[in-house]
Formats: sequence, C-alpha cells, structure tokens
Amino acid sequence: MKEQLWSILSAVRQNSPLVHNITNYVVMNNTANALLAAGASPVMAHAHSEVSDMVSIAGALVVNIGTLDEYWVESMKLAVKQANALQKAWVLDPVGAGATSYRNNVLEELLSYRPTVIRGNASEIMALAKFSSNTKGVDSTSLSEEALEAAQQLSETTSAVVCVSGATDYIVNKSNYNALSNGHVLMSRITGMGCTASALVGACCAVSADNAFAATTAAMALMGIAGDIAAEKAPGPGTMQVQFLDALYQLSEYDFRERLKLETNP
Amino acid sequence: MKEQLWSILSAVRQNSPLVHNITNYVVMNNTANALLAAGASPVMAHAHSEVSDMVSIAGALVVNIGTLDEYWVESMKLAVKQANALQKAWVLDPVGAGATSYRNNVLEELLSYRPTVIRGNASEIMALAKFSSNTKGVDSTSLSEEALEAAQQLSETTSAVVCVSGATDYIVNKSNYNALSNGHVLMSRITGMGCTASALVGACCAVSADNAFAATTAAMALMGIAGDIAAEKAPGPGTMQVQFLDALYQLSEYDFRERLKLETNP
Amino acid sequence: MKEQLWSILSAVRQNSPLVHNITNYVVMNNTANALLAAGASPVMAHAHSEVSDMVSIAGALVVNIGTLDEYWVESMKLAVKQANALQKAWVLDPVGAGATSYRNNVLEELLSYRPTVIRGNASEIMALAKFSSNTKGVDSTSLSEEALEAAQQLSETTSAVVCVSGATDYIVNKSNYNALSNGHVLMSRITGMGCTASALVGACCAVSADNAFAATTAAMALMGIAGDIAAEKAPGPGTMQVQFLDALYQLSEYDFRERLKLETNP
Repeated sequence: MKEQLWSILSAVRQNSPLVHNITNYVVMNNTANALLAAGASPVMAHAHSEVSDMVSIAGALVVNIGTLDEYWVESMKLAVKQANALQKAWVLDPVGAGATSYRNNVLEELLSYRPTVIRGNASEIMALAKFSSNTKGVDSTSLSEEALEAAQQLSETTSAVVCVSGATDYIVNKSNYNALSNGHVLMSRITGMGCTASALVGACCAVSADNAFAATTAAMALMGIAGDIAAEKAPGPGTMQVQFLDALYQLSEYDFRERLKLETNP
Repeated sequence: MKEQLWSILSAVRQNSPLVHNITNYVVMNNTANALLAAGASPVMAHAHSEVSDMVSIAGALVVNIGTLDEYWVESMKLAVKQANALQKAWVLDPVGAGATSYRNNVLEELLSYRPTVIRGNASEIMALAKFSSNTKGVDSTSLSEEALEAAQQLSETTSAVVCVSGATDYIVNKSNYNALSNGHVLMSRITGMGCTASALVGACCAVSADNAFAATTAAMALMGIAGDIAAEKAPGPGTMQVQFLDALYQLSEYDFRERLKLETNP
Repeated sequence: MKEQLWSILSAVRQNSPLVHNITNYVVMNNTANALLAAGASPVMAHAHSEVSDMVSIAGALVVNIGTLDEYWVESMKLAVKQANALQKAWVLDPVGAGATSYRNNVLEELLSYRPTVIRGNASEIMALAKFSSNTKGVDSTSLSEEALEAAQQLSETTSAVVCVSGATDYIVNKSNYNALSNGHVLMSRITGMGCTASALVGACCAVSADNAFAATTAAMALMGIAGDIAAEKAPGPGTMQVQFLDALYQLSEYDFRERLKLETNP
C-alpha cells in the first residue's frame, strides 16, 4: 500500500495534472499554491460560458461550495455534468453542510450527479449522511466513530469514496476503509486546510483514475505528513502555513514511508 | 480596564464565537486566518438564499464594502436587517469611503441600519462624518485630531461606537474615548490589516454584546500588540504577516498587560 | 538604462501611485501585497456602478482575466474605455489565453481597446499573436525564440509594449527589445507571480506614462531581482512568497544595480 500511495504522489509531480477548481473565495489562493507545491497545475474557472470547456481539458474537477451563490451553483452543475459526460473524476467538498437549508438543497442536488469522492469534516459528513439516506441510527461510542459510520452510510448510498477528515482521517470505500493518524492540531487554526485536502484529492484522482480510494488515501497522507513536518518548525499558524507549503514541495519518499501512520481495514 | 479587555479576548478563545463576514475578495483569506488565530470561528456567506440564515447562527456580523457590487450590496442589506431583527451586533468597515459616489450612496444606506460599531481609517471616517451629519467645522490642529472629531460627530449622529485606526487608534463612544498607541508602521504595508481589525471587533462583540465600546477597544489592543510583537521579528511585510498570525495565536495575558498602551478619556 | 530603471522604481516608492486592478480572485491578495511592498497603493473595484469613477482617480489600470465571467468582462470594458478616454496607461494580463474559446473571444475584444502593455507567459502570448494577426509562420529554433517572435508580431499588430515572461523575460517595443535573465525557477511554483508582475508594470507605468517600454522593463527587473534575493533564503514555495515580499520592500539601489542582468537590443 505504501508503495502504491507514493507512486500516486510521484505521478502528480511527474505528470503535473491540470486540476479544475470551482471553489470558494476564501481559499482559492491556498488551493492554487498547495497544488503547485505538490506538483500539479491549478486552474480556477466558473463562467457559464467556459466552465464545460475547462473541464474538458482538465484531469479532474474539484467542487467546493464554501462561498456558493446562485450563479456559482449553476457553474458547478454545468461542470459536473461535463465531468460525468467525459468520465472524469470529480471531488465534492460540502463546506458548511447542515448550516443552512440552501446549502443542504444544493448539496442534495450535487449528490445526484454522483461525485467520485466526497471529503468533509465530521459534522459535514454527518449532515450529508442524514439527508442522503434514511439514517439507521448509530451505535457509535465517540464522535469519531459516529463520523466513520456516517461516512460508510454515505459511501453506500452514493457509491462515492468518502473521506472524513479530523485527528484521524477515514477514507471509506463500501466495505473497506483506511485510517490515517498523521497531521497536527495547528492545521485546524488555518483556513482552507480541508479545501486544500480536497484539491489534492483531485490531483491524485487525475493520475489514478481507476482507483479513487487509493488516490484519496494518498492525498490525505500527503496532507497529514506535510502537516507533521511543518508543525515541527511552527510556533503558530502563520509559520505553519509557510512551512506546510515548503513541506508539500520537499517531501521525500523516505520521509513519506517513515512517517506514514496508516491502518487498513479490513 | 486592562482586566476587562483581557477577559474579552480570553472569552473569544474559550467560546470560539462564529463571526459572519460579508467582506471583500482581497482580504477574505487574511480575515479568516486572523479570526482562527485569535480563537474565533469565521464564516463567509453572501448568497441571497442563505445570508439571513447564516446571520441567525452567528454571534456577530461584519460588513466590509471593499469590493462591493450590486449583488453583494443586496446581501449586506439582507444580513444587517436580520442582525437588527435578532439584536446581534454588526460592524461596518467603510472601505474606500469618499472614493466614488457609489460607495458613498451605499454607505449612507448601510448607516441607516445603525451599525453597532464603525471602524475605518482617518480618511474613511472623515468621509462618513461629512455626509452623515452637518459637519460643524473642525478646530483640530492635526489630521489625527481632525479624525477624532469626525469620529465623535459620527458616533453622535449614528449612536455607533466609532473606531478610527492609525498610528493612534481612537475608540469613541459618545462622550468617552479610548486611545491606543500600540502597533507598527509596517502594518500599513500589508493589505487587509484594517479589515482584520474589523473582523476581530466582530469576534469581541460576539462575546461582549452589552459592551461594544470595551469589545472594540479589546480588539484594537489585540491588533496593535500583535503588530508590535510581530514587527520585532519582521524585516519586511512578508515576514510581518506570518509573525502577526503567530502573535495573535500566542499572545499571553502577561504580554498583553505589559505592552498595552491605553489612555482612557475622560 | 540602469539609471532610468531605478529612477522609475524609486518614483513608485516616492509617489505611491494608485493602481486600479480588475483581476482574478486567486491572486487579489498577492497583488495588493506586492503593490504595497513596492511602495504603490492598490485598489480593487469592479462594480459597474463605480468602475469608471475608480479609473478616474487611479494612476494606471491593470486588467487580468484569470477568473473572468460575464459581469466582470463588462467591468473590464467599462474600465478600459475610461482609461482610454483619460489617456491613462492600462495593462492586459491574458491569463489562460488559448484555453477556451470564451477567453479568446474576450481577449480579442479587449485587444481592440489597445492596451498600453500586454504581459503573459510564452503560451499566452503565442495564443494572442495567433488570433490577432495572420501569423507569418515562425523560424524559431526554441520555445523561447518562438515566444519572442510572437511578442514582436503582437507588438506590431497592437502597438502595445509586449512582455513575455519566463526564464528570460522579453520586453518588446516594435523594433527594440530588452531581455532580462533574473528570476528563479521556484517562482513558477507560486500562484500569481505573473499577475504580480502585471500589477507592478501598472505601478511603473503610472509614474512613467510617456515610456511604457522602460516602465515594463523596470517592473520585470524588480520582479526578477526580488525573486533572486528571495530564492537565496527559500527552501520551498511557502518561504519563497514571504521572502519575495520582504525583498520587494527592502531592495536597495546598490543591489538592483549589482544584480540586474539586462540585455538591450538592438
């Protein structure tokens, strides 16, 4: 598995896939910089007049609803339709799921276009699971377990790979799941770290179209390990951002293997 | 007073209030990062379809007109109406007041919704004072004094707490005002420092709803002291941004008390 | 020439020209910070209701189509018309030229408003040259030469100063051109470096209205030299961004002269 994950990250560096992001205003800069640091090529485009054309030349699409509005939601729909028509991977980042009924309605509609991967935090994934399935009720003993169960339900209903990120990241694919325990708490004090993760998932999917489960795991491992390395040099969230980009850029295969904390299930 | 100010900043860290920002494209990332570093939770949302719902779950609202347009102005009006309906504090940052008649017209309309706090630089506050009252003419001997008089007039006309930031920050509440002389000139070479200040005012108002005057003073003191600390390590504006976020995150009660340069009047 | 270039950069610091940017969401923050670090004053405004008024008070206009849409294209047209009416310099950054037919159509229309300067990378300039003239066919032996020829054709057709940036930056004005070989490969791993270059061209044009060729050369020299200095301290793209802003701010005349790698032709 370690072998496979590193070879995906390595392919991103070598092939420099074009990743089309329809994302929020807050994080566009971070997202673009993280993709560049990891070796990918970012493009941001949302005009109704060109969004389908841009999907056509991209390796993968990332849709993030953070600062959605009516125009942008239409852009997202045009883009995911085209991604589906061309059988390209697309990643959904359901920022703020559950916060307003508008967000929930938009997400319900986007889910109907069958994302390849869904990545969110625990509360977002739990919100999505709630309205995408008749939740069976959960037997979890902790928030983390509850989120994992929600991710499993959501994966079942949607056939998407579902990633719920947090202190432990779970990557769920029907009956299997991976758990990653890299990363640092300081990452939660920087805006857009989740959005960056979703963008890197897009980059990995672009070079590993047949295996979104491995691609998502590779991207989340890269996030966590770069976070670990950065945190060693960062007394606060300002330095952390800078060191994180450096770590994405510099990460060696040796460090990746040594630091990876991956548990595969079953 | 020192006691009270620190206890407000401490409440932000403990309660992590949700601050809803309708702000400009240039600074959204800085604003979100500064709120996170100070312990608050940022949310950015502007869709007409959800903006009122987002105000409902937020602790305070910050409206910043930096890159306004017709759609966003409507978002702002929907949001401030809801804030007023729910008696939540809202902060107005009148970026570029006086630069175009469109800005002035929008600001005049926003003022009619009675912001809790208005924060701007000297030229913005003077522009607002001019069209919100029959300016009495000023007897000031310096730009700084002139700005203070404008802030006092504006506070009288609007009943808002008015903060005019600069080398000395004035926080005006009817007959009282506080003057803060923390901060460093390098802050003026970083975009969005004023916008960050307004966002932190929002965070402080969210945990100190009954005392917007103290909340605004606390936020401005945090800005200035974090700026002082950062400047000690920063040879230029790039490093300054990074160190500023670290300083917001790390600031201790001891450093806050030792460094605070506050003058209360009367 | 060195003398002249430094005096333009020095005038930016002394006069602090207001540079109006209609640019993309990804880079607005970088652009504003780079302008501030170099001594200029940035303003971002796009509302149809004010965009002409903002051009009127600015020293130069920069139009960047990175995240264009129908509303923003209209803003750009209103702004460039006003720039032309007032004989102010305007800079076109044709981000993603050639990627979609929408971009090409918009660029064709913007070219008809005769930009003072066009700055792009090799593929963008070659795309523009293709649809703005009957390309004569090129005899170039390398991508870099091909780009130079495209820039010369484009300059001839449009009467604009054309800058094609890359490992070597070419600044073309009809029969003359300058070549700059400052800069570092790490700059290509940071989003918005090209956009920053265009904004700095705007700042230099604002203080050197009668000589856009020298102004463009000065701005590109500043970019490259600040990049050289930053790269000496930067192990990765995160640190690079920070050091780059510090270098823009701190650059001395001595360092500028010592480091400049300029070739004038003929």
